[in-house]
Amino acid sequence: MSTGAELHALAAALYPICRSITGDGVRATLGAIGERIPLEVREVPTGTAVLDWTVPREWNVRDDYVADAAGRRVIDFRSHNLHLLGYSVPVRARMTLEALRPHLHTLPEQPERIPYRTAYYSEQWGFCLEHARLAELREEEEYEVVVDTTLEDGHLTYGECVLPGREPAEVLISAHVCHPSLANDNLSGIAVATGLARALGDLERRHTFRFVFAPGTIGAITWLARNREVAERVAHGLVLTGVGDRGAPTYKRSRRGDATIDRAMAHVLAEGGREHALEDFSPWGYDERQYCSPGFDLPVGCLMRTPHGRYPEYHTSGDDLGFVDPAALEDSLGRCLAAIDVLERETVYRNLSPHGEPQLGRRGLYGALGGSADKRTEEMAMLWVLNLSDGEHGLLAIAERSGLPFATVARAAGRLAEHGLLEPLG
Amino acid sequence: MSTGAELHALAAALYPICRSITGDGVRATLGAIGERIPLEVREVPTGTAVLDWTVPREWNVRDDYVADAAGRRVIDFRSHNLHLLGYSVPVRARMTLEALRPHLHTLPEQPERIPYRTAYYSEQWGFCLEHARLAELREEEEYEVVVDTTLEDGHLTYGECVLPGREPAEVLISAHVCHPSLANDNLSGIAVATGLARALGDLERRHTFRFVFAPGTIGAITWLARNREVAERVAHGLVLTGVGDRGAPTYKRSRRGDATIDRAMAHVLAEGGREHALEDFSPWGYDERQYCSPGFDLPVGCLMRTPHGRYPEYHTSGDDLGFVDPAALEDSLGRCLAAIDVLERETVYRNLSPHGEPQLGRRGLYGALGGSADKRTEEMAMLWVLNLSDGEHGLLAIAERSGLPFATVARAAGRLAEHGLLEPLG
Amino acid sequence: MSTGAELHALAAALYPICRSITGDGVRATLGAIGERIPLEVREVPTGTAVLDWTVPREWNVRDDYVADAAGRRVIDFRSHNLHLLGYSVPVRARMTLEALRPHLHTLPEQPERIPYRTAYYSEQWGFCLEHARLAELREEEEYEVVVDTTLEDGHLTYGECVLPGREPAEVLISAHVCHPSLANDNLSGIAVATGLARALGDLERRHTFRFVFAPGTIGAITWLARNREVAERVAHGLVLTGVGDRGAPTYKRSRRGDATIDRAMAHVLAEGGREHALEDFSPWGYDERQYCSPGFDLPVGCLMRTPHGRYPEYHTSGDDLGFVDPAALEDSLGRCLAAIDVLERETVYRNLSPHGEPQLGRRGLYGALGGSADKRTEEMAMLWVLNLSDGEHGLLAIAERSGLPFATVARAAGRLAEHGLLEPLG
Repeated sequence: MSTGAELHALAAALYPICRSITGDGVRATLGAIGERIPLEVREVPTGTAVLDWTVPREWNVRDDYVADAAGRRVIDFRSHNLHLLGYSVPVRARMTLEALRPHLHTLPEQPERIPYRTAYYSEQWGFCLEHARLAELREEEEYEVVVDTTLEDGHLTYGECVLPGREPAEVLISAHVCHPSLANDNLSGIAVATGLARALGDLERRHTFRFVFAPGTIGAITWLARNREVAERVAHGLVLTGVGDRGAPTYKRSRRGDATIDRAMAHVLAEGGREHALEDFSPWGYDERQYCSPGFDLPVGCLMRTPHGRYPEYHTSGDDLGFVDPAALEDSLGRCLAAIDVLERETVYRNLSPHGEPQLGRRGLYGALGGSADKRTEEMAMLWVLNLSDGEHGLLAIAERSGLPFATVARAAGRLAEHGLLEPLG
Repeated sequence: MSTGAELHALAAALYPICRSITGDGVRATLGAIGERIPLEVREVPTGTAVLDWTVPREWNVRDDYVADAAGRRVIDFRSHNLHLLGYSVPVRARMTLEALRPHLHTLPEQPERIPYRTAYYSEQWGFCLEHARLAELREEEEYEVVVDTTLEDGHLTYGECVLPGREPAEVLISAHVCHPSLANDNLSGIAVATGLARALGDLERRHTFRFVFAPGTIGAITWLARNREVAERVAHGLVLTGVGDRGAPTYKRSRRGDATIDRAMAHVLAEGGREHALEDFSPWGYDERQYCSPGFDLPVGCLMRTPHGRYPEYHTSGDDLGFVDPAALEDSLGRCLAAIDVLERETVYRNLSPHGEPQLGRRGLYGALGGSADKRTEEMAMLWVLNLSDGEHGLLAIAERSGLPFATVARAAGRLAEHGLLEPLG
Repeated sequence: MSTGAELHALAAALYPICRSITGDGVRATLGAIGERIPLEVREVPTGTAVLDWTVPREWNVRDDYVADAAGRRVIDFRSHNLHLLGYSVPVRARMTLEALRPHLHTLPEQPERIPYRTAYYSEQWGFCLEHARLAELREEEEYEVVVDTTLEDGHLTYGECVLPGREPAEVLISAHVCHPSLANDNLSGIAVATGLARALGDLERRHTFRFVFAPGTIGAITWLARNREVAERVAHGLVLTGVGDRGAPTYKRSRRGDATIDRAMAHVLAEGGREHALEDFSPWGYDERQYCSPGFDLPVGCLMRTPHGRYPEYHTSGDDLGFVDPAALEDSLGRCLAAIDVLERETVYRNLSPHGEPQLGRRGLYGALGGSADKRTEEMAMLWVLNLSDGEHGLLAIAERSGLPFATVARAAGRLAEHGLLEPLG
């Protein structure tokens, strides 16, 4: 199975689960992830103070439907978990359509799709349904309404996978796990993060890599509240979300705007002239909002493909497994690995023969007569590394300035270091 | 009467007066302004040393004409005060057109318009007239030439209106009062400055506002020479000139280029995507030349509409009351008030809950389900203010970075401060 | 004879000489230069350690040909010195075309041109020829191959012309002298550098001007190795190469990117809106590679017209005397002189009357009524100089910001200084 197919298969396995910001859906999701990578699951009790917030009551669903007089379920949670307004309080009643209508949410512009709506932190109940189906309900009929949910003291659950490295500095990868059957907005990020952890698990690592799978907002806030010291060690970070649709990749910079991760991602996305987009930080989006709050100001950016809210399937039943493309998942994973390669290998070297160019030919590093285009690129990379390795420029800066791929520049630096022409700076 | 009509009415009242850099025309002008706003009139004696300059002799006009052999006035100051070369020394003579010709100034490209010319600081006399009329004068005729002016020790006159504020820092608004019947280049600035002083007179003020109505160049130099300590308190300033024509507004930055007034004006002019232009400082134009001389380097920009010299009516009799539009005057006043609103409310806040986003919903600051577009904008403004209020960014910087109007950002900050989430810094 | 014709005549005189990185060709070239400007010729023995390199053995050519069975020379050094692979070791043999072929270099894309190839620092021999001529050689024939060269201990030769100035700071002008019959890539730079030295010889100089005529790479490295103290005094520098073709001038910035020479060249090339190109430094090109190596990091840029490698004649027999245009040579010389004028006259002045504008009219510096466009430009230049002479801005910065030519700005500063309004800063 190709990497893209594996990532898609994980998304498919998680798709049916009804996730929310707390509850058994999150636990089931973390369980599936934990089958693939080493994952510690954390349970934080309801009522725990986390930064300015409090861990809410835990929410679970047994059943949820609207049935007509004949007992037929005209809206049925079992057919699609988006039908239930997230965090609905329990209700059991009979009522006319008129009374029910304020509790029904539809998308008139996309009549065949179920919208995704939630009502966290407020005592509400409701149903989401296709606008077309709403038209089929009968005004005069009395409906049976059942929201069989529980909202009780329990826990907020999140998972953490830590891959230790040679150095204490950490790379934080974060994906949210609180959306029900939404494939791109949720599962794609989970799948790519899981794929990353698998790929990095086998490597010799410089940084410690920490993967956080947590419900959006309250999960990141809970993690931050409990990990202030870890947060201080975060040298680079990425929120992964919406990384499975067929659009070109989009990188949203961290609040700092010029953090190494920002530069690494910009470099990697531009490589080969491939289509991509870069956006400045804004305090709207996913959990980069929390990581980049001014008290933390972590160097955490966000990788997406088409940004949230800019595709019609966003937060609707249209964001299904067909909307997510194995090739896009694999491409997203590849871009992350390429950026991580930059983070792992970024080094400032000092040219040990800085007066004039050293004689590369004598060392077998420089072509005599002729030479292939690839060899010319390697030679150019050596000349750039030598010229800019004055203690001020790291390999990434050299790649940026020369327009050469980071990998080429890093390879040239390695070769020069082997020949005693460079040394890495502390 | 609309604001625009009031501003235009003031210009109309001042239009017939023959102003120059000294003399009774300036006094009459300041008298009319003083009927509308509290104005102190200053008289500075001829011969007073002011910076590198000396206050010149005072100039006044009794009469001025050229009459033909039949005694008919072929050029007559009483029909238009532009006919007289400004600061002409007295003369009384009879001469042929040939002898007179070197003293006659016309605009061959605009034959129906009288040019505006002056001869300050040099002993000259002359007449300005329509090029078409010059063609009607007869070569062989002897003309009577009368320039009945006085050039004597007296005073240079300027006016000052000071509206005290809570803080010693001052906002300087400056308009020149030395041009005769020119409506845009002179009267529009006087009218808008007067309107500003009226509008600000009723408000609770943070800054002290100081309005200077003075003759161009020598007036600003005289004011600066006598107000060195005041100059040190000028935190923001604007020269107002040519603010009544139908062109889009143009803001010329101060010499500093990034003073708060420069940023405030740029922000205000761009609001709503309306047409406008921004120009860098140059040492050519109006009294910003003096305020921005390197020894003072005050943060004073210049608001215009079509810049001087870029419209054919400039410095001709075409710059009359019809050239100035009430709506343009009102728009200029509104832009100034908007920029002043930025200056008055600009504050650096500190987020008191900087770790993660504070829970706005709990405080009733954040919409639950749905919400109007306006409400979404208000929420975005709160998120931006929280994210950037790290002690480094003022509200204007937050407005610039977020692309939201300053007023929206300031309102959001006010609401957050009320809820104890922000505090203003020093 | 026009200046352009004189420059072309020098190139023509040098064209037939077979230059390489050592040998009598360099000596003959320096001899011809030395007839025009005072030149010290330096001889550095084979084996001398220079930075990371060693001065190689000296190479000279007596004869070089391939003759057919009938004794006819089918490839003959005497007809074009590009036929010989540079630094070929001696060989004397009879061989079939098959055996000879690996030693033959052609340009299949330009079959009528002889390529230029060298084999420094490796023991090779070979011939370069027109691809069309290669086709005429007969497979079955046995050829007599004679490379009658010597490669022996001797010297590396370079020349230096020093024109002392009032101040110790130096301007370095460098041209390479190691290419055989190539007119643009070699002789154009030599000709313009020689022309510059002649033009500057007659002037009162502020800087010391040092012209280095040396073989590429090893020559610059040798010069740097022997002139570390001089290098510290280099305040500005230019490598001149490819300055004779008909393309627009191209300036490649120094490694620093914003050195005075970079700004001066950019200003001078842009003057009058003429076509030109600016490029950032890269560690590929001519001897700026050595001067801008990180251990020296000298402010040395490179003036070219069409950059090397971007015209088909580059490094072929097509780069002949017809490819080099007298007008282009003269234009290149003029640009250099204009940039040198900036370097020589660049001064930071202090406005001695910085509060308000000084009264220029009183000093006869400011037109009264009217005034020509030129006079207006002169007045604007004075206003700019006064406004920006706060001790932070030199004349070049004032020229850049005002958009006025440096010469106009410098003239205005001179006039203001004469009137006691400016003084130069230490």
